[in-house]
Amino acid sequence: MEKKIMMDLMVNSNVMIPSLLLENYYMLGLNEEECMLLIHVHSFISKGNYFPTPDDLAERMSCTPAQCADHLRRLVQNGFLNIEQRTDNQIYSEAYTLEPLWEKLIVHHYQKTTDQQHAEQEV
Amino acid sequence: MEKKIMMDLMVNSNVMIPSLLLENYYMLGLNEEECMLLIHVHSFISKGNYFPTPDDLAERMSCTPAQCADHLRRLVQNGFLNIEQRTDNQIYSEAYTLEPLWEKLIVHHYQKTTDQQHAEQEV
Amino acid sequence: MEKKIMMDLMVNSNVMIPSLLLENYYMLGLNEEECMLLIHVHSFISKGNYFPTPDDLAERMSCTPAQCADHLRRLVQNGFLNIEQRTDNQIYSEAYTLEPLWEKLIVHHYQKTTDQQHAEQEV
Amino acid sequence: MEKKIMMDLMVNSNVMIPSLLLENYYMLGLNEEECMLLIHVHSFISKGNYFPTPDDLAERMSCTPAQCADHLRRLVQNGFLNIEQRTDNQIYSEAYTLEPLWEKLIVHHYQKTTDQQHAEQEV
Repeated sequence: MEKKIMMDLMVNSNVMIPSLLLENYYMLGLNEEECMLLIHVHSFISKGNYFPTPDDLAERMSCTPAQCADHLRRLVQNGFLNIEQRTDNQIYSEAYTLEPLWEKLIVHHYQKTTDQQHAEQEV
Repeated sequence: MEKKIMMDLMVNSNVMIPSLLLENYYMLGLNEEECMLLIHVHSFISKGNYFPTPDDLAERMSCTPAQCADHLRRLVQNGFLNIEQRTDNQIYSEAYTLEPLWEKLIVHHYQKTTDQQHAEQEV
Repeated sequence: MEKKIMMDLMVNSNVMIPSLLLENYYMLGLNEEECMLLIHVHSFISKGNYFPTPDDLAERMSCTPAQCADHLRRLVQNGFLNIEQRTDNQIYSEAYTLEPLWEKLIVHHYQKTTDQQHAEQEV
Repeated sequence: MEKKIMMDLMVNSNVMIPSLLLENYYMLGLNEEECMLLIHVHSFISKGNYFPTPDDLAERMSCTPAQCADHLRRLVQNGFLNIEQRTDNQIYSEAYTLEPLWEKLIVHHYQKTTDQQHAEQEV
């Protein structure tokens, strides 16, 4: 039994989160609750669940399913999250994609790095 | 230049966060702001900064340095975070350790897994 | 375009490998070629391909597809790798599982840690 | 005791390896033994040991310390690995850096992606 727990901890115990998200979510206008929701969505996706429900998310969070649904709607409206329609083997499904979030982070990071470089050249 | 950015993204772009933290922080009595603060501390430690200041943390968060300091104090009081005194080569330093948080998570996970196992055996 | 490359590097650029595998594969009787093959299988699985072919593997390795198939057969025989039959929605498929490898690593690690502990107590 | 092992597995059980290394080392002219040596160096660095000795490396590998030293020399000569001289607080030290390897991987990846893009545009 203990062996099973240990094997599971060895292989599945971590989720990789982009450092740029942790360092810049506030710059992008997100607060901790919103960022955490996005991290949960990312974590579900990386474990193979592409469309966690508000219930799935609320189970891990300090907010209710209704509040989670509100947050998700707002994050889609504000361009941090997208919903994609997929059809595999005639089975229709929906999936969240965090592409818009990743794009904002890269654009912001690229701008910052380039600005620093220019500032250094002027000195 | 772009090459430098890409190399950096390839090697340093992710931080590993324990899945058990994401799945259980709310169960342990933490809200998103507190959990995020602990993730930031973990992220600083994993990049070699063992004692981020409230200013370091507030720069990435929606709260002020004073609020961060308050959070940190409370997290230490409630047994999620410890401060260790270290002496290396006669240089004194302080370091945060998340050992108490990891311990709570493992105890909670172990208890849950064992309970499930018993429930299954009774069926 | 560059943006796409950078986004991809930020999110998908790393694979997590158990440290215990890197530290102990030689102890378990594996050489670098065999360990690397297992790492490739693990990497394919973690990106959603549960049954990479010898061709898939040979494309990344210094050995031919036939040699990869030989290695795979031997790794299954020696209890490092299993093949599981799965049936999802009436679709039959096969999948590699590294459970036997993870189990060997945990058993070895547990034994070593316990031995050290006993040695320390006797001093 | 078990708790300690589990906590350690939860937090320290994985090393992140760039996917591009796993997918392209053979393209760059490396075999499994050389790639594995570079992964070991990367793993030591990511745990804070910047200059593992041939003995440290040979302990985990199927080759002797002398063979490891040979490999290391060749990897430096062929531009996969560098040795940096550092001076911190008047203490001189040497450190391996894998920058040349990361650069080769990014250049190769960038070239491949750009070529594919051109090929698609011509169709």
